Amino acid sequence: MPRASEATIIDGRAIAAGLRESVAQRVSELRSSGRPVRLDALIIGGNGAGEVYAANQARTCGKLGIDYQLHVLGPDTSQAQMLDAIEQRNTDGACTGVMVHLPLPDALDTIAVQSSIAVHKDVEGVNPANIGGVIYGQRTLVPCTAAAVMHLIESTGVDLQGANVVVVGASDIVGKPVAVLAMQAEATVVSTNIHTDDLEGHCRQADVLIAAAGVPGLITDAHVRPGAIVIDVGINRVVDQETGVERTVGDVDFDAVKSIAGHVSPVPGGVGPVTVAMLLRNTLEAAARV
Amino acid sequence: MPRASEATIIDGRAIAAGLRESVAQRVSELRSSGRPVRLDALIIGGNGAGEVYAANQARTCGKLGIDYQLHVLGPDTSQAQMLDAIEQRNTDGACTGVMVHLPLPDALDTIAVQSSIAVHKDVEGVNPANIGGVIYGQRTLVPCTAAAVMHLIESTGVDLQGANVVVVGASDIVGKPVAVLAMQAEATVVSTNIHTDDLEGHCRQADVLIAAAGVPGLITDAHVRPGAIVIDVGINRVVDQETGVERTVGDVDFDAVKSIAGHVSPVPGGVGPVTVAMLLRNTLEAAARV
Repeated sequence: MPRASEATIIDGRAIAAGLRESVAQRVSELRSSGRPVRLDALIIGGNGAGEVYAANQARTCGKLGIDYQLHVLGPDTSQAQMLDAIEQRNTDGACTGVMVHLPLPDALDTIAVQSSIAVHKDVEGVNPANIGGVIYGQRTLVPCTAAAVMHLIESTGVDLQGANVVVVGASDIVGKPVAVLAMQAEATVVSTNIHTDDLEGHCRQADVLIAAAGVPGLITDAHVRPGAIVIDVGINRVVDQETGVERTVGDVDFDAVKSIAGHVSPVPGGVGPVTVAMLLRNTLEAAARV
Repeated sequence: MPRASEATIIDGRAIAAGLRESVAQRVSELRSSGRPVRLDALIIGGNGAGEVYAANQARTCGKLGIDYQLHVLGPDTSQAQMLDAIEQRNTDGACTGVMVHLPLPDALDTIAVQSSIAVHKDVEGVNPANIGGVIYGQRTLVPCTAAAVMHLIESTGVDLQGANVVVVGASDIVGKPVAVLAMQAEATVVSTNIHTDDLEGHCRQADVLIAAAGVPGLITDAHVRPGAIVIDVGINRVVDQETGVERTVGDVDFDAVKSIAGHVSPVPGGVGPVTVAMLLRNTLEAAARV
């Protein structure tokens, strides 16, 4: 059935700007009552891209009134030294949030490092206790990408209770946590993966379709029910065969899907900027609960 | 399509006996190398049914070579006293497993109490970090009922990778953890709840159907695909209208379903005894990892 109009584009940049504004307001309130709001980030030195990202992060935090301390550790930092560095942040009353820039060198155990971050300072939501808390219905620091996906869905005004939510991809950091959050919202949730039979059939039943498989263009108009909400979590680097130019695309064939979906989030400019904003919101939440 | 034969009944009592035997063997090995295997259970006194259960538990542990200490606390135990009692167990090197008998009095915060159990001694898998660890693919102490459900499914020999698993009911302690475990096994997982549209249609697509809604007789032959595996997690007390006798029934209309399913677990005698055995297995696992 052809639709009279195209999908509403979910503007992740505008939503992120709104989140930052609200965070800045609440940070200001906390600070005026004398409360600390400080994010401590740990990074293994010599990671160029990571250091550029951290510098941007420092600037953004500054704009929002969040203190930021970057701790640069040497490239041969041992597991014990890393855990000790985190423990210092965990026990420092002036530090309200802790995060570790990835990737870590092979010699370090990433999950053990993440699990050592104090649950109430874990602003990326990478300590297993924080996602486990979601299952038990606790108000916890939710993994940023999963929180961003839920925020974009909610921005459309859809009622998730009883809605059919289909999650394409079951990764540990996105697909599974998003599925759990949708269960918590009382949706009917279908978690699919590369072994799923009849992916198209599952997807066509979705009121809300979340693409988090890491496969460029996997989701086409054939997967989408007219009027559905489509959230694209994919961030794939591809080289344009005609121009040779590298660009970032999602898991959704945007041009095909926008003619049938009710709402669709673009890549770039959808989940990405909101994920970054969610780190700031978690940083605020962690500070507010101290 | 009528089937030539009835479903295979999944014998939870026999499976539990096998688990206990294997636990006893491994406990014996640990102890012969001088390692402690001790479960400490905390209970608020004056709870008659709970104390009977604890006495049974002590006897079972004794048979398997597991030391058992029951700590009975007064009915007006404060939250701080309860947390202190747990901390003593957490830091006692001779104690390898800790559990708290529910229900707790209203004055105590159950989730805070459960979250205070050391992750590596949490033999019931109630600390959020343990179920969160499942999402991140860690080998953790899995909540006992969810672990029992997975064990019964695996006992049929089914390959879960790519199988359609439908979970009816999305409770925090059973439905959600089971869904996550099935995702971890690379199944396509459908989580349904009381708001789900067309529950029957979802269920009829299931290779494995898990009934955990707490509604007697909810699942009938109309919900089951011929040859499917049906696991009944329901434990409902009902009064027989003819005889007035109270009895325990599951969520599955067993007599109707056994003529169409490939495998079905009964109530009683299915998930229940295996859940009890899983506590013993978790107790062994916790001791083995010290």
